[in-house]
Amino acid sequence: MSKETLKKSIREIPDFPIPGILFYDVTTLFKDPAALQELSDTMYEMYKDKGITKVVGIESRGFIMGPILATRLGAGFVPIRKPGKLPAETIEESYEKEYGKDTVQMHKDAIDENDVILLHDDLLATGGTMAAACKLVKQMNPKKIYVNFIIELQELHGRNVFDKDIDIESVLSL
Amino acid sequence: MSKETLKKSIREIPDFPIPGILFYDVTTLFKDPAALQELSDTMYEMYKDKGITKVVGIESRGFIMGPILATRLGAGFVPIRKPGKLPAETIEESYEKEYGKDTVQMHKDAIDENDVILLHDDLLATGGTMAAACKLVKQMNPKKIYVNFIIELQELHGRNVFDKDIDIESVLSL
Repeated sequence: MSKETLKKSIREIPDFPIPGILFYDVTTLFKDPAALQELSDTMYEMYKDKGITKVVGIESRGFIMGPILATRLGAGFVPIRKPGKLPAETIEESYEKEYGKDTVQMHKDAIDENDVILLHDDLLATGGTMAAACKLVKQMNPKKIYVNFIIELQELHGRNVFDKDIDIESVLSL
Repeated sequence: MSKETLKKSIREIPDFPIPGILFYDVTTLFKDPAALQELSDTMYEMYKDKGITKVVGIESRGFIMGPILATRLGAGFVPIRKPGKLPAETIEESYEKEYGKDTVQMHKDAIDENDVILLHDDLLATGGTMAAACKLVKQMNPKKIYVNFIIELQELHGRNVFDKDIDIESVLSL
């Protein structure tokens, strides 16, 4: 199975969640055992030599490939969640969205300065949520942060919002 | 690593989300590579001979071990989500909660009558959400439904709310 076949397993849905937006639905990829395995293999190959100690996934679509990658890389998995969901002491970052503000939280003891972090989400659009997630992870001074997406929407130039020391890769550019 | 060690990797948080509730925090298990691997191995052993074709996980803590199990079993992964999150045609089930009603949705084309389903969530408490998820999956007439939890709170007798043809197992009983 090639990247072309992987791309074909993603369903395109016009006008979701609002008119004018073409939504890339990865659930059709996840439900196909061969496509899910291919995606898992591809991402494993991208990061197997990086010494990743923690994979950090963003709620909730980043919770799907994040844990798969964590077990394959022999790393731990850490969730970044919306406010009020994590039960122990948290750190947080707020960021501006098109309509108002949003906040992401992570447990304070989830990572430390000995960790090499792989931050994962399914889609890079404008990059606002992931940029806030990067700032959140940076509060704990890990050795290095890698950022990964399944899909990158190239025309939105989302990767321009990140600091230059962050290594960003996507499996598919659309 | 034994089940006893696995149990110790789960953090207990008193009075979360409300006073009087002892919350079992599995994030401390997930962030520990050895514990995450042990949990993944244990669950794989429980289901490797069942012919599972789709693992169905409930948003959002069921998204963590669900996809890991799916890739290990050579199955696909299907998300059950809160209303309005899934972009294509959905089916749904509503159920009563302590304060009002809740609804779960799944894509209509996510599973079919040839599937053997493993439904996963992190915790069995009163069983309301998982019972609704079972009804949702049953709408598509799969061959068989297995239900799995990381933790079962035995004193709440949550397994009593399920139909007798559903096979329920938990990794840890607390």
